Amino acid sequence: MKASQLPLFTLKEDPREAQVDSHRLLLRAGYIRRQASGFYTFLPFGYLVYRKIEQIVREEMDAHGAVEVHLPVLTPAELWRESGRWDIMGEEMMRLKDRHGHEFALGPTHEEAMTALAREFLQSYKQLPINLYQIGTKYRDEIRPRYGLIRCREFVMKDAYSFHLTEESLHETYELMRRAYRRIFERCGLETIAVEADTGNMGGSASEEFIVASSIGEETLLLCPNTDCGFRANQEKTTFVPLIPYEVGQREERAKIPTPNQKTVEEVAAFLKKDRRSFMKAVVYETEDEIILCFIPGDREISETKVKNLSSGKSLRLASEEAIWALCGAPPGYVGPVGLRFGDRESMVISPNDQKKKIAKVLFDENLRGRHGLISGANEGGYHYVGLSYGRDFHFDKGYDLVEAQEHDLCPRCRTSKLKATRGIEVGHIFKLGRKYSEAMGLRVLDEKGLPVVPTMGCYGIGLGRTMQTIVEQNHDERGIVWPESVSPFRYYLISLAKNSEEEQKVLSLYQMLQKRGVSCYFDDRQERAGVKFHDADLTGFPYQIIAGRSFFEKGELEIKVRKTGEKKMALPEEIY
Amino acid sequence: MKASQLPLFTLKEDPREAQVDSHRLLLRAGYIRRQASGFYTFLPFGYLVYRKIEQIVREEMDAHGAVEVHLPVLTPAELWRESGRWDIMGEEMMRLKDRHGHEFALGPTHEEAMTALAREFLQSYKQLPINLYQIGTKYRDEIRPRYGLIRCREFVMKDAYSFHLTEESLHETYELMRRAYRRIFERCGLETIAVEADTGNMGGSASEEFIVASSIGEETLLLCPNTDCGFRANQEKTTFVPLIPYEVGQREERAKIPTPNQKTVEEVAAFLKKDRRSFMKAVVYETEDEIILCFIPGDREISETKVKNLSSGKSLRLASEEAIWALCGAPPGYVGPVGLRFGDRESMVISPNDQKKKIAKVLFDENLRGRHGLISGANEGGYHYVGLSYGRDFHFDKGYDLVEAQEHDLCPRCRTSKLKATRGIEVGHIFKLGRKYSEAMGLRVLDEKGLPVVPTMGCYGIGLGRTMQTIVEQNHDERGIVWPESVSPFRYYLISLAKNSEEEQKVLSLYQMLQKRGVSCYFDDRQERAGVKFHDADLTGFPYQIIAGRSFFEKGELEIKVRKTGEKKMALPEEIY
Repeated sequence: MKASQLPLFTLKEDPREAQVDSHRLLLRAGYIRRQASGFYTFLPFGYLVYRKIEQIVREEMDAHGAVEVHLPVLTPAELWRESGRWDIMGEEMMRLKDRHGHEFALGPTHEEAMTALAREFLQSYKQLPINLYQIGTKYRDEIRPRYGLIRCREFVMKDAYSFHLTEESLHETYELMRRAYRRIFERCGLETIAVEADTGNMGGSASEEFIVASSIGEETLLLCPNTDCGFRANQEKTTFVPLIPYEVGQREERAKIPTPNQKTVEEVAAFLKKDRRSFMKAVVYETEDEIILCFIPGDREISETKVKNLSSGKSLRLASEEAIWALCGAPPGYVGPVGLRFGDRESMVISPNDQKKKIAKVLFDENLRGRHGLISGANEGGYHYVGLSYGRDFHFDKGYDLVEAQEHDLCPRCRTSKLKATRGIEVGHIFKLGRKYSEAMGLRVLDEKGLPVVPTMGCYGIGLGRTMQTIVEQNHDERGIVWPESVSPFRYYLISLAKNSEEEQKVLSLYQMLQKRGVSCYFDDRQERAGVKFHDADLTGFPYQIIAGRSFFEKGELEIKVRKTGEKKMALPEEIY
Repeated sequence: MKASQLPLFTLKEDPREAQVDSHRLLLRAGYIRRQASGFYTFLPFGYLVYRKIEQIVREEMDAHGAVEVHLPVLTPAELWRESGRWDIMGEEMMRLKDRHGHEFALGPTHEEAMTALAREFLQSYKQLPINLYQIGTKYRDEIRPRYGLIRCREFVMKDAYSFHLTEESLHETYELMRRAYRRIFERCGLETIAVEADTGNMGGSASEEFIVASSIGEETLLLCPNTDCGFRANQEKTTFVPLIPYEVGQREERAKIPTPNQKTVEEVAAFLKKDRRSFMKAVVYETEDEIILCFIPGDREISETKVKNLSSGKSLRLASEEAIWALCGAPPGYVGPVGLRFGDRESMVISPNDQKKKIAKVLFDENLRGRHGLISGANEGGYHYVGLSYGRDFHFDKGYDLVEAQEHDLCPRCRTSKLKATRGIEVGHIFKLGRKYSEAMGLRVLDEKGLPVVPTMGCYGIGLGRTMQTIVEQNHDERGIVWPESVSPFRYYLISLAKNSEEEQKVLSLYQMLQKRGVSCYFDDRQERAGVKFHDADLTGFPYQIIAGRSFFEKGELEIKVRKTGEKKMALPEEIY
């Protein structure tokens, strides 16, 4: 194509809206354009890249046994109500009513719709396994859309949903998809790290994220540097193992100490001149039907994700002061294990927030087991206890993993190396969903004996726009984008240094010859200075540049510049493929 | 592909929801599936067909100089407000608010968004003409969605928007698009009729629809059977020319006649024993800022579209009884031209509906000019005038074309032949938009003299799903679909009549050989009776069926059946391409 047919949409200045390189370059080089906060137009070059990624995704999904369908984006509320997610999805799910007052969601994901489709067609185990995928638009009403295509509100995803009779069959497809994902990202020229991930509100038993390491990423990964171990997980998912085990401590007398206006562990530790490691930190959460009191070692932070996974899964938030009073009879900052009306058993309280009867439960972190000499609130305003003992002052049967793991903690797999942290962007995610949706939505098939069984499910997502931008985040330099060839709009960017119409004609003939031979070449035939064209060639970032300059007009030799390395070599037109 | 990889989703029974063949067959043969009223899932075969159509559209748009982009589906309300369409689009446009309360529309079309994009990039006449297109999802909240993909609420359109300095340039692109459309529909195996069309609420000066003749169509076309003439237009757009000219009549005395309880032309004509042709029929409309009184010949129906085009273009509806009283001082049925406070001049009245001051105007159909002896209401309840004369009792300077043309009217072009009517489905539409959007949204470029000018625009749409279904409407028989090869999911449907594992192995080898040679073939390897497979092969409608039966196992010869004609011939595996 020629610039006169397919114009460049490059900008002369860096756009102010962009905070990160990939976003700035995609805007500046004319690949995308912001329409509204979180909404982007794909310009001609941008859509060419997008479609190449789409094609790679499609080919690999097909090659790994998935079958393409296409579901409506608008999804009736009834489907979301069947699974119970209409109320859970919150404000991130965009909703509307049609002219008859029927409610719909702009699908942020399609578990419900795909399960509803499956239950219309699946009758027999003979039809299983089946893996249905689509490439379609999704909506998520992010509070703060940012970084261009990384976190936007309208975006394209490939989402696949598989249905199985057995766990083994699910595992096979899960492994197939893992291979497909590796191939997809490899072919896109993207280096990803596959890590264990939290299953979040999708439910399910196992999941793995494909992460692109990047300082702008919103995910924190913890990696074991021991290559024999190879542990890699999302921080949210990593089991906490302290590098230095917590000391058991000495059994001693329990004493109530006045700690006026000292509420946080930091304040009380400084006030009492004690190490934070000997504190039991209390954190209280509330959901729609639970109030959850958690105790963890005083020197660490709680993992909300881990608590969420132990809760009913509905909207988890920190409990209000009133709820803490109701549960513990003490203000925040003075909650402790002594004198609670319940141990690790569940009882009921009325939430002062919504006047609903809720299950009150207490969760102890496993790292508190068997310890003595601990400090915690006295469930009385202005007092803490010191010298708390496991078995006497608190006790639990089952201990939990409630602490957020951090860099320098011990690797939970090999238990020898210290974990390293890195930030990253999630571009793909595979899940073993289990029977959450098939059960809720009444999907049944008959097994070999003719008995109805509920299939187990997997789901597998890739963000296409996000993939596109992370490719740029990983492949650029100070002059512009450096596209991997597999996704570049064109292979060559042809620049003419013709000084007269005879030379111009020569370059045009060269271009036409390349076209005829099917060479993927973009000819910058604008009436612009050579400097502008060199600049835009580097900015737009096709893998190779062809410069038709003096040696071409005199000797028929072209200069080929490799965008990535800046390396140049001479070639004859016939040698270009 | 094999059925074991890419399953059939055929239904055993005709679905009850379908009233027309194409809809029934797409459901029954497993191409689409209803999710909710007006929302359809594309099943694997359906999406293959859809993507083939998409590819044809893309290739022809590219070949005819258009450039592909991709705009967000959700469009900020501000853009619609700039053009003034936020208030006009009515309930058909689906709307929502985001979490911050900002309003968006689910784009039913993208004039505003594309013009907004253009004004960010277009600065100079040198960048014109440019024709930007996209293939994307659109929403229209139809009151009564029906006929499957023909009239649904979420659908894919190709929409293109061109920008030009001059009318000539617009005309060139308009003609290019007309050629592209002819090619697109031809390649899809679809016979279309290109007709002049009304420009509707899009504004603009010229438009042409591509119509598929079909008894289920919602459009009525009027065609001149005189091939030298070749007139073809949407009924809405056709100028009315009476086959028998209206007689001028004799000047006579005007007389007021009591016509109690006789309101319609039919009733009064019967009561007075007069021909409807000598009546002046009055019809009153109201918009947000106008009340419009129309007079037409008494034997004809008014064309609401024609009146709409002469109005302010906002929501046109029949005036209420109160509005008619306010305008004419008479009840409905007794309105006439005598004693109105205005002739063809505009004055103001207060609408009793919304208490707004509105322009009152009177439009006379040109066919009333110069006539005598006419009958109309007396603007007094229970009375009509007979013997009304042009020049004495009513008068107009400009006459209008207000009557809906019908079959058997005279062709307005050749004025010799009688028009024929046919029903049809609109699959494509090209418009000369003019400067409506560029003007309203402040799009300016500098011309050769450096002066700012407002570009003129064209827009060009094709409904992809609708195209898919009309192909079926035009290509099916009592046994199922008969796909044109260009859009069929596969070229061949392979049926095995193997009776033992040795024969099965032979067919599998045949299939693998065809695969290797790149032959587009679907192998029905289900464990089903041959009859079921023959049935489904006809139902799904690929152009050719390969039957591997006795002659294959004995002599290596395959039976090839042409789906369309039923014709059969023998072929060797090597002869299949």
